[in-house]
Formats: sequence, structure tokens, C-alpha cells
Amino acid sequence: MTIGLADLNHMAQPAFVAAIGDAFERAPWVAEQVHAKRPFDSVTSLHAAMMGAVRAAPRDGQLAFLRSHPDLAGKAARAGQVTDDSRREQASVGLDTLSDDEFAHFNRLNDAYKAKFDFPFIVCVRRHTRDSILRQFELRLGNDAATELAAALQEIFYITRLRVAAKVTGEGMPKVNGRLSTHVLDTQAGRPAVGMAIEFYEYVGGRAHRLVTTVTNTDGRTDEPLIGGRPLPIGRYELRFMVGDHFRARGIEQGDPPFLDIVPIRFSVAEAETHYHVPLLCTPWSYSTYRGS
Amino acid sequence: MTIGLADLNHMAQPAFVAAIGDAFERAPWVAEQVHAKRPFDSVTSLHAAMMGAVRAAPRDGQLAFLRSHPDLAGKAARAGQVTDDSRREQASVGLDTLSDDEFAHFNRLNDAYKAKFDFPFIVCVRRHTRDSILRQFELRLGNDAATELAAALQEIFYITRLRVAAKVTGEGMPKVNGRLSTHVLDTQAGRPAVGMAIEFYEYVGGRAHRLVTTVTNTDGRTDEPLIGGRPLPIGRYELRFMVGDHFRARGIEQGDPPFLDIVPIRFSVAEAETHYHVPLLCTPWSYSTYRGS
Amino acid sequence: MTIGLADLNHMAQPAFVAAIGDAFERAPWVAEQVHAKRPFDSVTSLHAAMMGAVRAAPRDGQLAFLRSHPDLAGKAARAGQVTDDSRREQASVGLDTLSDDEFAHFNRLNDAYKAKFDFPFIVCVRRHTRDSILRQFELRLGNDAATELAAALQEIFYITRLRVAAKVTGEGMPKVNGRLSTHVLDTQAGRPAVGMAIEFYEYVGGRAHRLVTTVTNTDGRTDEPLIGGRPLPIGRYELRFMVGDHFRARGIEQGDPPFLDIVPIRFSVAEAETHYHVPLLCTPWSYSTYRGS
Amino acid sequence: MTIGLADLNHMAQPAFVAAIGDAFERAPWVAEQVHAKRPFDSVTSLHAAMMGAVRAAPRDGQLAFLRSHPDLAGKAARAGQVTDDSRREQASVGLDTLSDDEFAHFNRLNDAYKAKFDFPFIVCVRRHTRDSILRQFELRLGNDAATELAAALQEIFYITRLRVAAKVTGEGMPKVNGRLSTHVLDTQAGRPAVGMAIEFYEYVGGRAHRLVTTVTNTDGRTDEPLIGGRPLPIGRYELRFMVGDHFRARGIEQGDPPFLDIVPIRFSVAEAETHYHVPLLCTPWSYSTYRGS
Repeated sequence: MTIGLADLNHMAQPAFVAAIGDAFERAPWVAEQVHAKRPFDSVTSLHAAMMGAVRAAPRDGQLAFLRSHPDLAGKAARAGQVTDDSRREQASVGLDTLSDDEFAHFNRLNDAYKAKFDFPFIVCVRRHTRDSILRQFELRLGNDAATELAAALQEIFYITRLRVAAKVTGEGMPKVNGRLSTHVLDTQAGRPAVGMAIEFYEYVGGRAHRLVTTVTNTDGRTDEPLIGGRPLPIGRYELRFMVGDHFRARGIEQGDPPFLDIVPIRFSVAEAETHYHVPLLCTPWSYSTYRGS
Repeated sequence: MTIGLADLNHMAQPAFVAAIGDAFERAPWVAEQVHAKRPFDSVTSLHAAMMGAVRAAPRDGQLAFLRSHPDLAGKAARAGQVTDDSRREQASVGLDTLSDDEFAHFNRLNDAYKAKFDFPFIVCVRRHTRDSILRQFELRLGNDAATELAAALQEIFYITRLRVAAKVTGEGMPKVNGRLSTHVLDTQAGRPAVGMAIEFYEYVGGRAHRLVTTVTNTDGRTDEPLIGGRPLPIGRYELRFMVGDHFRARGIEQGDPPFLDIVPIRFSVAEAETHYHVPLLCTPWSYSTYRGS
Repeated sequence: MTIGLADLNHMAQPAFVAAIGDAFERAPWVAEQVHAKRPFDSVTSLHAAMMGAVRAAPRDGQLAFLRSHPDLAGKAARAGQVTDDSRREQASVGLDTLSDDEFAHFNRLNDAYKAKFDFPFIVCVRRHTRDSILRQFELRLGNDAATELAAALQEIFYITRLRVAAKVTGEGMPKVNGRLSTHVLDTQAGRPAVGMAIEFYEYVGGRAHRLVTTVTNTDGRTDEPLIGGRPLPIGRYELRFMVGDHFRARGIEQGDPPFLDIVPIRFSVAEAETHYHVPLLCTPWSYSTYRGS
Repeated sequence: MTIGLADLNHMAQPAFVAAIGDAFERAPWVAEQVHAKRPFDSVTSLHAAMMGAVRAAPRDGQLAFLRSHPDLAGKAARAGQVTDDSRREQASVGLDTLSDDEFAHFNRLNDAYKAKFDFPFIVCVRRHTRDSILRQFELRLGNDAATELAAALQEIFYITRLRVAAKVTGEGMPKVNGRLSTHVLDTQAGRPAVGMAIEFYEYVGGRAHRLVTTVTNTDGRTDEPLIGGRPLPIGRYELRFMVGDHFRARGIEQGDPPFLDIVPIRFSVAEAETHYHVPLLCTPWSYSTYRGS
């Protein structure tokens, strides 16, 4: 259920808070404060006003707000004591299906983090792969208190921006999604490579987990983006192109075994709200790739 | 210990046979027959004459000759009942260190092969990886008798050509070796990529086994070829270039995590006596490779 | 002024012929014949029916029809005695501004052609550059009579398809246009090359004539296709990319003088109704191009 | 006629000066001074000592030395009143065959230069193309006196280094030569492109002048470097590869006219004593080039 920005702009405070208050975890006071600032000319400025209220809050209020967030992959989440939004977000990156060892590891990191900073580790999980969350955890454990408070508020910014964008429709939507696409050109034939099978993997702990198996269409692209309609999770990926099969099906000499068979392209995503285009130009004896646009 | 072709050309038959007879497994008659054809103007023509004697032998003689070869990875080899040359050649591809399961698998293939063709499976192991030997085994089990006799004699040609080239020196050495090299150009800087770490892997049963770890020199090449001074074993390989480290060390913006970190180039060797050159041209955002020369 | 296919389908013969008859040069009988075949379910099938009438005509009728066409760049065209469509089409390729020498050369070819085939040389000039028309002239002068009659009717097909597509709108428009586009990626920075100047040339008699000067936008593309909304004239072209200026403006080391300054990409168009995409991937020290899609 | 460094090291002063004194134009005092510094352990250190004598000379002596050099392309050179070395060097870049207009242009630049600096414009012509000399002239006319004196002495360094390297043989020869090479890979076939015609041009005043026509050998290279055994003249060049002919001869589909026919690679040389490698990787539909090594 989404609500229009125009409707929000006309709501009395209680309805306004009921509509969007829970974008900020257990903090209806954020919506209460910004109600007076209506009307908002864009969804982006609505969200900016809400973040402004958080940033203007006294330090104690900010800390209380941060402390109201559940542990990442923590006992509360396992026990079902978190908000629906939190549960869905954590599930999106597989944090709801950790092995007992992984669960213990996350809990140890959580404990070390809370011992140092006195609030739980907060990260916008929809912007990260599981590996990237672990790396963030380790990096941020090294921060000093002031730097880490800023880092935690920046993650709140990402989390709530996604929630607001999911709840409210209207002018000036914030840019919250990225896209990953590919394109295969058969430069031996001077044409798109049609019908080439592609596998797409995410690296988790040094191992490649297959996310998608697809095939190129008549334009050498995939009908759907490899990732789209959501933030691109920051992390390491690999595309595998079945180049050998493509040329074998066309009867092209390529050696036996073929010089190129499965062509892997390993790359990382560093910006979650951006378009990454990773094409392949190939012959049976050569290929190239690049970050395109 | 090698012997000069000129010396061989002057030897009486017993010395001649003693010098090169065992290039043909348990078949001194081959050397005996070609002794009369001296002098040979090249090592290649010496070997050609010896193969000519095998090909001119009656079918029964050929079969007896083939049957005098040990099973590949077979019980005889394990028990030490094979010639030194055979033992060394099988060890070169890891056939002396098979697990019990692998040993059993090879023996089953050997048994099926001998049941069909009535001589052991012969392959020039120095021209193959372990995976490629298994693939040859499966492919050749499908041959008819005449095709397979020709295939076995062709392998004898490869095996004995290597042995003759190792025993005899002189004019007109046969081409028995291949070479695998790489070269890394940093096309962002327009210079060879100096000091880039490279790992080189062979694929065995779907898993990559590291053969070499090396680093590029001031010309962007490796001081030693990745493989050289021997036949290139037919099979699947992977080069992994530490591109992310290279640009990080130079302070070049490449995203965080870097768009390209470890760049894998997966390729196959199909011709054992050839030069394969597999270079990498790279920036932090693009790369290309090709079969060079 | 265009007319809708639905309207055409309801017209009486005189209005129908008045509306589209002159798509076929001085041959209203073509429209008269196809009037009975209404309704047409697509503009493509309307044109197919009209060409069918030409192809079904007796040989004498076909020849009379061909003879009613003006000489290419001929005296009639100069003297203004041709239809408006013919005049516009010839002007599109510069045939109205030939030098006296060129005019004489075309007339000599015309005379040789008519002496051999007894009808004027007909070519769909909008599908060709001036060089390509001359090449067609020379090639087709070598044809035998039957082959050349077929070639001339194929050109009539192209000419009239363009005319019908310009006069009639509706379902099933024939594909008559091509498109030429480019895209510049700065693979040193991993981004589109923004603001790079590009010059686009057509080769005429061995010399490059500039058609367009443009600049890349924020996506590394040009706001308008280099050629679009019309057939791509078959011929030779050159793109010149101001790569040196691009990197100089960004303060990137590139040598002095820069290793790459103006990068020329010379290519030919062979298919007039197709999309040609000719991108450039560049660093200060390397570039690549390909026929993309 | 060259002389060995060891012989030089044993010569009395008069013979020493006779042997190498004229490496420094009309300045035997340079050789006279360094004679006492024998023995030299390398040709490089001999030359360094001679330049040291010039640099240690009083400013008046340096100016007198510079003034003893002929005008570039000047009246003295035309009238035969210069040393043989000067004449040969100027001829190497075509300064002996200027048109009357070009001669007048050079003389105007010379006059402006001498009016400003009171010595003739000196440049090591063998390190430059004609265009590059003109560009140097214009750039250096803008220098202040001290900067330009240093620039002139640096050119003396280049000129005399070449002369010493041509006269004296022995240990530690200075690096005075560059090399320009190419290599063509047919990445459609995965092999060197054999027998491909290549034309090599120098740009002079915006027009390309052909220097060399050659053809690739069985390794896809040219038997001789495009430039070698001398400094690479700084300037702009173009390689033209007959790619269309190459693929036509092999019966490869490439469109008609071929998408790629003559492929021009335009590049500049900025460092005269270096190796430039400018390869081409091509299919009928794509190509790439880079500064290689």
C-alpha cells in the first residue's frame, strides 16, 4: 500500500504519523516533528526533512533512536521481536538463514560493536551483499565514536530513504535503485551474440553462488536486467558467458578443446544506486570487457 | 646422457641399438631394422625411419608391440614393473599419485578398453593434462578397431619422438616443445604493468589447481615462460591477474571495492607443440585478452 | 501532406490514383490496377501490390516504365523537366551541384548505359553516397540484359517504397530508414567521455567531406544520431574523435605531443535500412572500436 | 670511419682532437680540454665530459660556441658553407629541399630568433620531424634568455651525443636510437595476420607523406622496424592497414563495401630514444590498438 505525496500533504498529524511514522524504526516523533513542515514539494524533500529532524535531535535522542534498532541477525530478529520492515530487509540478504556458526559469528561482532559504541550495528542491508556487510562490520569496528555515530546515521538515511520511497509516491522520488546489465557482441560476425547462455554469481566467502541463469536475446542483451528495481548490493560478482557453445553451434573453428569455453568476468559493485553495464565483445580467440554506460 | 647424431651414424648395430633402442618400449627390433638406413641427416628423419619400421610391421607385430606397453596408471606401474621412461612419463601428469578411487576408475577404463581392442590404452601423457587424458580415454573407447589402431600408433609417434629428442642431439631436431607466455600492458599508463602478481592454474575435474605464482618484470612479462621446454599439456587453464593490487599500489581511483580486482582468464590448450601467448591489456575499468603470437 | 491508409482504403479509383499514383514515376496505371485490391492491411502490402503490378506487366510495359525515368544527373534534370520527387531525390546526394567535368562524366556513363540497355540508369539515390552511385554505375554496366532489368526493378522497388512511406501513414509501415550512432567510453576513468568533439565525414572521390560536427553528451553519446530518419547512404565514412583534447582538459598525462590526438575511424555502410553503431573505447594510450548494436 | 674508445684513451692530444674534436661544431677546445681526463670507461662518460666542458665554459664562450652554428635551413647551409655533419643532419629532415616559401618562412623565424637571443636557433634535427621543428621554433621563441640558453645547450647535448656515438665505438654506448614497430593479429582466426599490406605516413603540415610501404610476415610483424637504427623523429604519424584486402583474400564475409577497409591509426612520437610498439588486433568488424612494448 502506497500513499500519494499530495494526500500526505493534506493530512492531519495523527493520520500523517500513521502513514509514514514507521519509516523511522520505533520513532514516531520524527514524523510528528516534520508534520508542521508540510507541504513537501517532493518525496525527496519529505525524506530530507525527516532526516533533518533526526540530525537536529540531541545526542541522547539520537542514541536512543539508534538503540531502538534490532541487532543485525540478532536474537531479537530470530525470535520475531522486530518490525516487519526490519525482518524483510534482513531476509533480503540471507541474514535470516545463517548457519549456527555464522549466527554465532555475527553475534560476536554485534557484542564487540555494542561494547565499544553502546548501540547496535546498523547497516542498510539492501545495499550490500553478505560479504560486504561483514567487511563493513570489520571496518566500522575500527572507527572512533564520533565517526561511527555519523556512519550509523548515514545508514539510517539509506534505510529510511528506501522505506519512504516504498511508502510514498509522487513528485521527486529519491534515486534508490541501481541496475546491472550486460550485452554480448560477437565481433567475429559483427552482430549481437544471440542465444548465448550466461550465468551470474555472487561471491560469498570466497565461493561463487549462482543468482541467475539467462540467455541473450536477439539484441545480445538479456530480457531482464541481471539486477534491477532495487539497490545494487555492494559486493563481488562474476558473469560466466558460454562462449564456446555459442561458436560451436555456429560451426566456427575454435580449437579442440576450444581456446575459450566459459569466459568469466569478475567485478565488484561499489555504488548501489548506479547503473553498471558490463558487456562482452568476443571472438573464439579474443574478448574484452569494460564498465560501460 | 645424450648422444650425437653424427656418432650414431657411425655406430655398429649393437651399439646403435643399445643407444636408442629403448625409445620404442621393449622393441629393440625397431632400432635393429633402421640401422641399415644410416646415415640420417636429421634427428627428425631418424625418428621417421623408426616409426616407418613400426608402420611397415605386420599387424600382428604392431599389436604385439602395443601390448608390450604398460597400462596407464595400472597395476604394473604401481608395482614398479615398467620401464623407467614409462614411469617418469606417467608421473609427469600425476598418474603416480592417484587416489584409490581414481586408480579404480582408470583401471575400469583400462579394462573396458582392453576388452574392446585387446591392447592397453596408450597416450603420450606428456602432451596432456589429467583431465585431457580422461577425455581421450572416453573418446577413443568409441572408436572402431582400425581407427583406434591408427590412434594408438599416432600416440606411439608422439611418445617416441619425445624420447628420441631427449636421447639424440644434432641437426634437424623435431619440434616437440610448446610454450605458454603472458604479457600485461597497463593501458591506463601506456606502459608494461610492472610487478603485477599472476597465478596460473590447471583445471582438474572442475577445480583449479595452482601450478605457478609469479610476477611481471619491467617489460610486463614473466622472467620464465609459464610453461616451456616441454610439450604444452592439452587441457584447461586459468591465469589470474592481481589487477586491483596493481592500481591500488599506484594510487589510481578504481572504486571501493575495486571494479576489477582479480581478473581470471580461462582458456584451453589444444596444440601441444605450439606457442600460446595470452596477454592482458587492462585499466581499472576494462580489459581485453586474445590469443597472441 | 500524408494520407492515412484507412482513408486510402475507402477511396474511389480517381481519388486513390490522385493520392498515390505518382509514387511510380509517370505510371498512374500502377495505382489504377491495385485499386481493386483494397483494402490493404498495411502500408507494406499496399506497396507490395503496386510493385506486383509492375512485375506482372509485360516486358514492353516494364521497359516503357523504366524509360519514363529521367537520366541520373542528366540534361532533363538540369533543365527542370523532371518530377518534383525525382528532383528532390537527386539533390539529396549532390547530383544537382556537379561540376561541369562531373556532369560530363555522368552523361558519358548514362550514354554508355542507354546504348547497352535502352533505358536510363535507375538507382535509388537516397540509399547511396555519390561514390557509391558511381560504383553501382560501373558494376551494373557489366550486367547482361536480364540481370540488369531485375536490378533496375529492384531500384524501382527501393525508390517507390520510400515514396509510398512518405505519402501514406498507417499500420505496417515498411522499414525504409537506417541510423548511425556512436558512443564514447573513457575506459581510463570508467565513465562516458563527456564533451568530446566529434567530426563526421563522407568520402567523396578519395577526399573526406565533413557532414557533421558534434559533441558527446553526459552519456557519451550524441544528442542526435549522426544519420537518422532516412536511409543510410551506402558509402565510406570517417569519424574523427578529439581524444587528445578530452584528456588534456582533464589534466591526464598523454605525452607531448599526445600519443593519441585525433582518432580517425574509417568504415563503410553496406546496408541502408539498418542501425550502425560505431563506438569508441579509449584511454590516452589505447582505443578500440567495433560494429555494435 | 669509427674509432675505438680504447684507442682514443691512448692518443696524444693532437690525435685525440683530430679524431673527435669536430663532434662539437667549430669548437676543438672542447676536445682539447677533456683530453686530460682520459681514460674514459664508456663512450657515455666521454660525451658527458665533453658536455661538461661546454657547461663549465664562461657565458661568453658558450655564446661564441652557439654562434658558430649555422642557421637552420639558412643561407649558409644553402651556400655550402657549413660542416659536413650539419649538412647531413639538416638533409635528414628535408631542410635541404624546402620550397622558396618554406625557406623564406624559416629565415623569418631565424631572424626573429637571432634578434631576440643573439645566437642562431639550434635543434637536434635528427630527433624531429619537419612539423616538430617548426613547433619547437615557435615554442622556444617565447622563452626568456636564460631558459633558452639552457634549451640550446640541451640540443647541443643531443646533437653531439649522436655525433660521438657515430664516431666512437666501445663500452657504454649512449642510448641514441629509438624504434617503431607494429604487429597485426587477426583475432577472427586467432593467428598473426600474414601478408597484410601496411603504409606508414608522416604528417607534414596537415598532409600525410608516405614513408614506407610494407607487408606483414608470417609472424604478423614487418621484417624491418618501421623506423630503427636512429632516433625516432618526434612528430605525428599514421599507419594504414589494408584490413579489407586481408579478409577478402580469405573469403571472409565483411559486407560490400567492407565495414573496415583501410584502417588508419594516427599517433604521435614524443620520445626519440624509445621503443614505440603500435599493434593492431582486428576482425572484419572490430579493431583495437594500444601503445605496447
